[in-house]
Amino acid sequence: MNPHKQILEKSVESYELYLPHISIDTVIFGFSENELKVLAIKMKFNQQWFLPGGYLQKKEHIDDAAVRILSQRAGVTNIFLEEFAVFGKYGRSEDFFADYEDSLWHKQRFVSIGYYALVNYHNVSPKADEMSEEFDWLDVNNLDQYSITMDHKEIIQKALLTLRERITYKPIGYNLLPEKFTMTELQKLYETILGKSLNRGNFYRKIKNMGILTKLNELRTGGAHKAQELYSFNKENYEKALQDGVNSW
Amino acid sequence: MNPHKQILEKSVESYELYLPHISIDTVIFGFSENELKVLAIKMKFNQQWFLPGGYLQKKEHIDDAAVRILSQRAGVTNIFLEEFAVFGKYGRSEDFFADYEDSLWHKQRFVSIGYYALVNYHNVSPKADEMSEEFDWLDVNNLDQYSITMDHKEIIQKALLTLRERITYKPIGYNLLPEKFTMTELQKLYETILGKSLNRGNFYRKIKNMGILTKLNELRTGGAHKAQELYSFNKENYEKALQDGVNSW
Repeated sequence: MNPHKQILEKSVESYELYLPHISIDTVIFGFSENELKVLAIKMKFNQQWFLPGGYLQKKEHIDDAAVRILSQRAGVTNIFLEEFAVFGKYGRSEDFFADYEDSLWHKQRFVSIGYYALVNYHNVSPKADEMSEEFDWLDVNNLDQYSITMDHKEIIQKALLTLRERITYKPIGYNLLPEKFTMTELQKLYETILGKSLNRGNFYRKIKNMGILTKLNELRTGGAHKAQELYSFNKENYEKALQDGVNSW
Repeated sequence: MNPHKQILEKSVESYELYLPHISIDTVIFGFSENELKVLAIKMKFNQQWFLPGGYLQKKEHIDDAAVRILSQRAGVTNIFLEEFAVFGKYGRSEDFFADYEDSLWHKQRFVSIGYYALVNYHNVSPKADEMSEEFDWLDVNNLDQYSITMDHKEIIQKALLTLRERITYKPIGYNLLPEKFTMTELQKLYETILGKSLNRGNFYRKIKNMGILTKLNELRTGGAHKAQELYSFNKENYEKALQDGVNSW
């Protein structure tokens, strides 16, 4: 099918299925090998990068829609997913399909609800569909090298800011690290999210004070480095810290 | 004009002016005399409490809409205002005008964008309009005593949770306290927001470490209590702490 006809059919179908003027965009952060990346889709028709997104069905709870979209677009389920911001500037999406009639679904004004998710990116298996050419993980610290559509770069940056604020009052790492990890790996996760180096001694002290770690009776050996103690998360204390916060007054 | 006719006219006008399916609700926290309250409106036609809210004009930025609504409904301008959550469960608003035709604007599905604001409530002068009977400040720690419409109690509680999280990583107090205040008053503000008592020594130490206060060469005297040192915010350091966070890694 030619892309033009395809988009017109999508438009008709969308008017039937979805609530107008509301869209959802997801920022899926993946962490692996000390890099923080964001899942993006390259669209066939203009070769720009998009965030995985979609629309809200007429009778669907909005949080359910975000879960559905994440599952459909990125093949991930059962992960941490949280709404973080609303993108509702006039003109953010309306001028995008300039060559089409004004009645096209995709050409309407959309206020987009942003959700972010945290995953270990080895667990994600995104699939290209009829509209998209490829998927890739974009390096959040070098977004300028990509051609990113509309305000999607702003959406990624706001999600990153939210994540940085969040780790001052909530624990992080579960779902991002392997089950057993070293303190160095945990520190690297924090440093990658924050985009800066941390003092090792201060980091150890703060993390230990949270009480969320269990020291295993095991060492990671091998490689060029000296053997390091392994840790896992104490799930009960981790959940409690998620609930109560780690920097409470 | 009778209320029924009024609502039908509002419906016609709303379809002309606003983007369908999106609403805005504002949670305006006021602090005074050691109490944290939320501004609410009592509607004439059903005697329930509502949050001040409104709709998004077809060509208006969403943040501008929130500022406009706050100004129109509560008479406040130039205050801290931040989007905090989206309320988009199916059924949250649709069943509300059961006696009216399905085409009524107010009976459509609305996804509501929540904004919260912090004010010293002596500076607010809300005015009742043709739809509303009275305004009042509801005590956030005793919401069950009021008949609150739809999911507006949930919206208030989510805003309070956001505010509690926020004060673990951002300074607070500017706009809520008078220009000169005692450390006891600042501690009371934190205690009121958190809904719990704080240890005086720990509080003083943490606040002083933020570097956001200027100790004035002045005492507050009078009353039954002994004279207390007065403080003001160091605006430059306060702004820096707003930007960088106060509990950074």
